Amino acid sequence: MSSSTILPKISLPTILSTITTHYKPKMVSLLNDTVEFRVSKLKGDFIWHTHESTDELFYVISGGPLHMGIRHPVGSEGSEVGREETVVLEVGDMFVVPKGVQHQPRAENEVSVMVVETAGESTTGNQVDR
Amino acid sequence: MSSSTILPKISLPTILSTITTHYKPKMVSLLNDTVEFRVSKLKGDFIWHTHESTDELFYVISGGPLHMGIRHPVGSEGSEVGREETVVLEVGDMFVVPKGVQHQPRAENEVSVMVVETAGESTTGNQVDR
Repeated sequence: MSSSTILPKISLPTILSTITTHYKPKMVSLLNDTVEFRVSKLKGDFIWHTHESTDELFYVISGGPLHMGIRHPVGSEGSEVGREETVVLEVGDMFVVPKGVQHQPRAENEVSVMVVETAGESTTGNQVDR
Repeated sequence: MSSSTILPKISLPTILSTITTHYKPKMVSLLNDTVEFRVSKLKGDFIWHTHESTDELFYVISGGPLHMGIRHPVGSEGSEVGREETVVLEVGDMFVVPKGVQHQPRAENEVSVMVVETAGESTTGNQVDR
């Protein structure tokens, strides 16, 4: 993409209305050719996975809440070893999963999210794509 | 920031509720130490300005609409020279102003937005900060 290419605006609700499969994101924008903005509908438990080379930002657009399981890195909290916690994300919440941190998105009720990470990164990180 | 630092979630509506000055963004997140997420309340006409080294992404959270004046780069559309247009952004709309493209946010009604660009970039780009 040339730096002077002006693309049309994108309505995220409109793109979301075309998504019928959970955990199958659609790309909506690219920033500086390197950062990808996606929208996705999540429901049910995703797999535990890690993105080794990019942070992954979540922003809850509607529905939910989104329960984000997190395994704290070994040694990151003194003597604790890989403690697990769940961050509960409601509409309007933003949360960054740092690179290298194992996580598992879970949603009892369908939740629509914006997901931002390095362009080209697989949704399942270090796990084989389903 | 270490790659294993897990920061708390951030409620964008809560941050927005603390903003009392238009066109004074607050930083909410950082992705890969290089990309900054901000929220801002806009009302009235901002100045025409350009970000020479970063695209700037806008996402409308509430209020608005946001009118984004754009000056198309000279020569980008055949014989047209710097044609001006206004992109009207409603809640849920996302729009990327490419680097190097002159633009002017305008809002008759207050609009709350998420703005994403390279970390450290001035809100006014090539213009002196107000």
